[in-house]
Amino acid sequence: MPQTPHVERHFTAGERVRDVVIGMSDGLTVPFALAAGLSGAVDSTGIIVTAGLAEIAAGSIAMGLGGYLAARSDAEHYASERLREEREVHEIPGVEAAEVAQVFRSYGLSDQESAAVVEALCRRPQAWVDFMMRFELGLEKPDPRRALTSALTIALAYVAGGFIPLAPYLLSATAGRALVASVAVTLAALLVFGYVKGRFTGARPVRSALQTALIGGLAAAAAFGIARAIS
Amino acid sequence: MPQTPHVERHFTAGERVRDVVIGMSDGLTVPFALAAGLSGAVDSTGIIVTAGLAEIAAGSIAMGLGGYLAARSDAEHYASERLREEREVHEIPGVEAAEVAQVFRSYGLSDQESAAVVEALCRRPQAWVDFMMRFELGLEKPDPRRALTSALTIALAYVAGGFIPLAPYLLSATAGRALVASVAVTLAALLVFGYVKGRFTGARPVRSALQTALIGGLAAAAAFGIARAIS
Repeated sequence: MPQTPHVERHFTAGERVRDVVIGMSDGLTVPFALAAGLSGAVDSTGIIVTAGLAEIAAGSIAMGLGGYLAARSDAEHYASERLREEREVHEIPGVEAAEVAQVFRSYGLSDQESAAVVEALCRRPQAWVDFMMRFELGLEKPDPRRALTSALTIALAYVAGGFIPLAPYLLSATAGRALVASVAVTLAALLVFGYVKGRFTGARPVRSALQTALIGGLAAAAAFGIARAIS
Repeated sequence: MPQTPHVERHFTAGERVRDVVIGMSDGLTVPFALAAGLSGAVDSTGIIVTAGLAEIAAGSIAMGLGGYLAARSDAEHYASERLREEREVHEIPGVEAAEVAQVFRSYGLSDQESAAVVEALCRRPQAWVDFMMRFELGLEKPDPRRALTSALTIALAYVAGGFIPLAPYLLSATAGRALVASVAVTLAALLVFGYVKGRFTGARPVRSALQTALIGGLAAAAAFGIARAIS
């Protein structure tokens, strides 16, 4: 499918970064908050480590496999919509040509002004289908290898993120002491991660750092409060 | 921003459904897997309920607030890219006109065939900017109210999903018995949820049901195995 090189670059880099951000955001935050929450209810780190590792396994599989199936179903959706457009271009070219004109009319162009482009597309059925996929339906052609790459990237980022808040509980026998270390280590990691994320995604890095730490802090505080209240 | 009504409808309905799917997928899966995992390590349901509720609090806040900030940053990214396009259309119209022609060249159209559309856009700076945002950069104008709606939808779907696997542990004192009930209730819920999700997203419903149950089952089995191995 022809695309402007500009869009192609933007799209590919963005997807990979987005997968790491998705996995690591939750990996840093949820096991951190769960361990902090349990520290409000139990004294032994053994049960917190068990719960934390179980959560990392569950979360990375749920997010990774979820990402894999989502990417696969995006690819199938694209393929089925493309078949439909190909059929329509072949069977009802008049209707489809009117839809091309309608795309330009929504930008204030008269049918006369868009006529040359509409006619040119009608002479090139493959390019016409490509045009309809992108400009009428707003669908980008998915990369066939993305489903697996996306799954592994999200899952590994989740595991990598999850071990940071859990490390202090692995090293200390007292939940209270491990909690203090976990809060310090994880808030530092969230600030660094948020800063780097901001640099990659074009957001203001310092604000991104503070927002990311805020999410983790609020989630952990809520989990801690709930666990303490019911235990 | 002018858009074809077709695209607009597709976009809005899809986003809301996507938010419910995101929240409920993880809400059904991760607390289910965590509770199953802890059932492999402890006998009392008290600690499992505490961990489960802490996880639901942490997960819903992390996903909801994460969704809120992601939607906000999408909106800011759109606004800043739009300002840049407006400046470029004003300051270097020749370069931008060549970029419009380049979009059509990537669909096999000659500069002569696209000339009328390029000229028409040059006479309408606002429509020109709209065109560049969508067709060169591939960016859709975000709905300003979406950030908050998205956050609440994801968080509530997560909480609603999370209480289903946890309910048996709230009602029974024995972890083993609660686990059996939780597996049965949650697999049934995952099958129904996967089926409905398939109907909404255009995937084959029965396959979607089986895939969704598979993710939950694998995540729970992995969490159970890990928790049993280390305890």
